Amino acid sequence: MQITGDMLIGGAAVRGKAATLRAFDPVRNTDIEPAFGAGDAGDVDRACQLAQQTFDVFRQAPLEQRARLLEAIGEQIAALGDALIERAHIESALPKARLEGERARTIGQLKLFAALVRDGRWLTATLDSAQPERKPLPRPDLRLQKIPVGPVAVFGASNFPLAFSVAGGDTASAFAAGCPVVVKAHPAHLGTSELVGRAIAQAVAECGLPAGIFSLVIGAGNAVGEALVAHPAIKAVGFTGSRGGGIALMNIAARRREPIPVYAEMSSINPNFVLPGALAARGEAIAAGFVDSITLGVGQFCTNPGLLVALEGPHLKAFVDAAAKALEKKGAQTMLSAGIASAYRDGISRRLAVEGVQRIGEGAAGGTPNAALPALFATTQSQFLAQPPLEDEIFGPTSLIVTCKDIDEMVRLAEHVEGQLTATLHLEQEDHALAQRLLPTLERKAGRILANGFATGVEVAHAMVHGGPFPATSDSRSTSVGTLAIERFLRPVCYQDLPAALLPQAVHDENPLGLWRLRDGAFERR
Amino acid sequence: MQITGDMLIGGAAVRGKAATLRAFDPVRNTDIEPAFGAGDAGDVDRACQLAQQTFDVFRQAPLEQRARLLEAIGEQIAALGDALIERAHIESALPKARLEGERARTIGQLKLFAALVRDGRWLTATLDSAQPERKPLPRPDLRLQKIPVGPVAVFGASNFPLAFSVAGGDTASAFAAGCPVVVKAHPAHLGTSELVGRAIAQAVAECGLPAGIFSLVIGAGNAVGEALVAHPAIKAVGFTGSRGGGIALMNIAARRREPIPVYAEMSSINPNFVLPGALAARGEAIAAGFVDSITLGVGQFCTNPGLLVALEGPHLKAFVDAAAKALEKKGAQTMLSAGIASAYRDGISRRLAVEGVQRIGEGAAGGTPNAALPALFATTQSQFLAQPPLEDEIFGPTSLIVTCKDIDEMVRLAEHVEGQLTATLHLEQEDHALAQRLLPTLERKAGRILANGFATGVEVAHAMVHGGPFPATSDSRSTSVGTLAIERFLRPVCYQDLPAALLPQAVHDENPLGLWRLRDGAFERR
Repeated sequence: MQITGDMLIGGAAVRGKAATLRAFDPVRNTDIEPAFGAGDAGDVDRACQLAQQTFDVFRQAPLEQRARLLEAIGEQIAALGDALIERAHIESALPKARLEGERARTIGQLKLFAALVRDGRWLTATLDSAQPERKPLPRPDLRLQKIPVGPVAVFGASNFPLAFSVAGGDTASAFAAGCPVVVKAHPAHLGTSELVGRAIAQAVAECGLPAGIFSLVIGAGNAVGEALVAHPAIKAVGFTGSRGGGIALMNIAARRREPIPVYAEMSSINPNFVLPGALAARGEAIAAGFVDSITLGVGQFCTNPGLLVALEGPHLKAFVDAAAKALEKKGAQTMLSAGIASAYRDGISRRLAVEGVQRIGEGAAGGTPNAALPALFATTQSQFLAQPPLEDEIFGPTSLIVTCKDIDEMVRLAEHVEGQLTATLHLEQEDHALAQRLLPTLERKAGRILANGFATGVEVAHAMVHGGPFPATSDSRSTSVGTLAIERFLRPVCYQDLPAALLPQAVHDENPLGLWRLRDGAFERR
Repeated sequence: MQITGDMLIGGAAVRGKAATLRAFDPVRNTDIEPAFGAGDAGDVDRACQLAQQTFDVFRQAPLEQRARLLEAIGEQIAALGDALIERAHIESALPKARLEGERARTIGQLKLFAALVRDGRWLTATLDSAQPERKPLPRPDLRLQKIPVGPVAVFGASNFPLAFSVAGGDTASAFAAGCPVVVKAHPAHLGTSELVGRAIAQAVAECGLPAGIFSLVIGAGNAVGEALVAHPAIKAVGFTGSRGGGIALMNIAARRREPIPVYAEMSSINPNFVLPGALAARGEAIAAGFVDSITLGVGQFCTNPGLLVALEGPHLKAFVDAAAKALEKKGAQTMLSAGIASAYRDGISRRLAVEGVQRIGEGAAGGTPNAALPALFATTQSQFLAQPPLEDEIFGPTSLIVTCKDIDEMVRLAEHVEGQLTATLHLEQEDHALAQRLLPTLERKAGRILANGFATGVEVAHAMVHGGPFPATSDSRSTSVGTLAIERFLRPVCYQDLPAALLPQAVHDENPLGLWRLRDGAFERR
């Protein structure tokens, strides 16, 4: 499939006329052909109008057709073959093997949502029978199902050009819910975006669904994204990216005549608490795993462990030495984009300038102009609490070790940190009492709590939560990974005394869809 | 039980020192004793701190204890006896029989949430087994449950001094979720609020729960409510009231350092579509029901039918005549407060001044200084579309009949209106095709769709939705009535590879709580 540099608006290739953009190869530090035409608010309006016009048809199509769409998108992505991996590789500097894994994850995610659509639990079908004889007033017949909220705007992440981008979790869950999707292409992987966008458009056509349910727009600067979030047809937003970007979209959404929900996955430093028993028993092994985790994918994961907390003492000294030694072997590697590499260097400089912070380890220099030199810092708990900038996420292969004088300092630190995607405990049996003290706090602070592992690696599963209190995300009630993600794009509707002929299938007496339903308070599938 | 005029902060009576307030008797147009002491931001801070400090204990208490709390609140409210009804009657001018019904509804609602707590489906317990042999990477053990979001601020409604106030649906669902609650007393029923607040405090003590999980604060003006929504300990807001009030709280919540969700139920004109077959077959009966519905409770219901849409012609003429005649028999009745009565009169004056609007019927004048004279207006579809103020809710016993030239005008009007709590179809078998045309639009516009009835009367049930797209509410994904209301105050947490000894009971292998759970994708209770 050819990359043309066009937008895809309701299945049609549309040349953006507002500006010319090119993708960038961060390894060679050069632009990549071809040129892309960036669109304007008029293009956004056209895409959103088409999404609005096709919404009712899409949401009322049989669930089987919706499930097939998700599978067909996966098939079309697979059919792109090596061309997709090649393009994503030069646009992101991510290794091909990693991108192949990410493609498999993306296709697997689409299949999981297809199975979820067929299962139909998310419809929340609920029936409360009429009680015509009830006193003082008869009770009406009430039935409930969830329906999609409407067209969804999706902003992909730079760090997952496949799994969190054009056909990533936001798009998959929005389609699964029955929402048309308008994606704003990420400027760091425009070619990858177009290829995947074409795969989606082809799948939409193949499934006999209206072309307007999917568009991919390109923008230079922020105007196109802002117009998208502000458009009256858009009813929810999925975003993965920086805190500043997420907050900007939240503000636009809140200022609309009709405010809409924004699901922004933004920033997290994912604290790791190494409890004393674990530190004594296997500090060096934890240090090796920690350094692997902070440098994995050049540290470009939302779940990167940017903070590690432990008690001072000889075991911590050994831990720090082991971590520093392991880090020396990690070379500087190219980041996703020149902008991200530059932001990383700035972040490291700022951290070095903070009083009471020591650099305790560094990777091996070298690499390309956009490479990131891994770096490890240390400070004390009191310093960490006194210096709010130490809580800022530095996106890249770095972390901060915070030493606590005692358990109480560790508990206070846990209580002090902002909302997180994840929190991790490294513990042995003897640490359970301390873990019990920390857990209530960690539950309030994070969406996912791990033991004896690292949070880099987010399983796509029913029980996954990739979300958390602000600023980890804009909405702690939701997850952007796993099947619960569909709930972001649904709303309940109640039908009171509607004639059977007019009721949606999900709440027919005969249960033609074979759903699990709550009927007069009892959960059943019959 | 004595009304003292104190606030209740974590179980203690606290005299507010910022100002003195009195409740008002709208029938006699006079203040009611005793004086209430309004608090300040310091009192709010104390209440919120207590809520925060007791949150972990409350949420980790056994579900049975939480269920008992809800039942005990109902028992304590019942034990207040006639004193509660008397006080609510003089504060609201609502008839005693209506208040007795509302008390029964409030107690029934608490019982329903107690049953929901015991059922535990809302925990969303989910288990995905580890797959240690999976390639290329093993899959971790993942378990998920929902936990409460944190302390909740509740702002009750003037029009339901019991069912949507201190111990109403917001408080019941927040407690059911495990959230401490800080209520801002509604100034129109301060005495009722104190009585119910004392009942809650007594129930909290009786159940052995920490007193800090409930506070009732009093404010003069908006400062106390604003401080409450802005307080860092507060994690969600429940509000029922005006559009202006709801939007003000939404803005405060969005501007916080940590934005929080606001569930504001605000304004709705609840369109009724009388389809041609129904108009021909039983226009007069519908007219009588319509007039009963708009004047019920002096029209002071969120679900009052403020808009009725029908096709012009002889049947509509007969309908309008019947409605006007029925309205003549409805007397002016006292509204909830002097402010509401004055806003009603202003709304009626503004409506009369709109070009192309005719007053087609009026109730019987008389009554008290704060009585509302029922009024019925008519206009054309084109006029309605051209004059946005005609979509504004007038809170009180009034409605607007909009005549359409043809079916297309009716469909366009349905597409034109803002988000609603409810939409109603009056139809016969022969109207089904037209209903099918309207239904997709009504699903997008409203949270509840009724046939051949009136929306005044909101059943507390599993399948109820009392919510809808903005401006009906601030969050169309939620309902403030019915068991789904609990979802507003929950967020998911995932536990990855946590040792069994540290896992919450809901996701233990042995299912000690006997919950319905999703285990490796299969729904089961064993």
